[in-house]
Amino acid sequence: LNRIKASGLKLRFCTNETQATRENFVKKLQGLGFDISVDEVTAPAPAACHILKERGLRPHLLVHEDLVPEFAEIDKANPNCVVIGDAAENFTYANLNEAFRVLIGMEKPVLISLGRGRYYKETDGLKLDVGAYMKALEYACDIQAEVVGKPAKMFFKSALAEMGVTPQEAIMIGDDIVNDVGGAQQCGMRAVQVRTGKYRSVHILHP
Amino acid sequence: LNRIKASGLKLRFCTNETQATRENFVKKLQGLGFDISVDEVTAPAPAACHILKERGLRPHLLVHEDLVPEFAEIDKANPNCVVIGDAAENFTYANLNEAFRVLIGMEKPVLISLGRGRYYKETDGLKLDVGAYMKALEYACDIQAEVVGKPAKMFFKSALAEMGVTPQEAIMIGDDIVNDVGGAQQCGMRAVQVRTGKYRSVHILHP
Repeated sequence: LNRIKASGLKLRFCTNETQATRENFVKKLQGLGFDISVDEVTAPAPAACHILKERGLRPHLLVHEDLVPEFAEIDKANPNCVVIGDAAENFTYANLNEAFRVLIGMEKPVLISLGRGRYYKETDGLKLDVGAYMKALEYACDIQAEVVGKPAKMFFKSALAEMGVTPQEAIMIGDDIVNDVGGAQQCGMRAVQVRTGKYRSVHILHP
Repeated sequence: LNRIKASGLKLRFCTNETQATRENFVKKLQGLGFDISVDEVTAPAPAACHILKERGLRPHLLVHEDLVPEFAEIDKANPNCVVIGDAAENFTYANLNEAFRVLIGMEKPVLISLGRGRYYKETDGLKLDVGAYMKALEYACDIQAEVVGKPAKMFFKSALAEMGVTPQEAIMIGDDIVNDVGGAQQCGMRAVQVRTGKYRSVHILHP
């Protein structure tokens, strides 16, 4: 990162992190020694807030409690949609049933998902990501979620616009073959997969 | 039920109940005044046990604790498949991650699901059924579950064989348009949907 910054190349951090506000996400990376600030981060929650305001949607939130502050300015009374993020410990049986009941009670259920990741790795092992729970609600309600965040095209386009570059001028670097590499390629960017993080060799041949 | 039994018609109870053993299921219905015995019940767990034995599969169980006795005679050491039922309160974040890790650790993950129901109704409201959680694991592992129980053809065929009648000689009665009515029709039976239980009028036109 330091070498990229020193070279004068433009840099942006595209994260599907929905377990924390951008502020906390940045603090964590700074603590690990990375040179990063909030205004360099593109993340799903602010993108979702933009959509909610634009369409007059009042969300029932099924998200990590540390992400809730990102939705502070959004009206959440009498919900007419569900926003799902990587809720982690908040993915309880009771919370999933509650989100389901909000959806099934609507004439046309609206489910906005802050990503469609399958799983990710933490120090104590692999964990189901938001995409798995999104699929559960999609199936139960017979609907399709609207995905904000990687690999949605809009997400990469926002990041490119924020940097003021074209897809051809940018390279995406990430560990997720679908969300990082696939999403960027769909958008006309080149992409590089790193062999760390969630990388597993079995996924090279059939992404 | 009493009139059907008095008429001499053959009768069988086809349930996707996977929250309790057949013994407890029957006791509950007897307590409500129904004339029913264990040997009149076709249920997913015994069907799954048959498959497990036949294929030498040792399951990691993600099921309701009251269903566990149905798997008493099955070897569960060093699991090489996951069996998922309506685990209800056992559908915790930790248990779902554990089942996922067993699956993703296999070269060819085998997931056997005791049904594919979307949701059901209890006195305290609608609840996500096993199908939703099955979809979550399917998506996370990029696999397809093998479904035992309604609406699988094999399930209805077993019930018909146990009664010794052809599909044309039988009528299925149930409240679920997909699992009861659709499954039976796929099998060549006629079917009747009752307007009680989980029935919702919105589902008539687009099952």
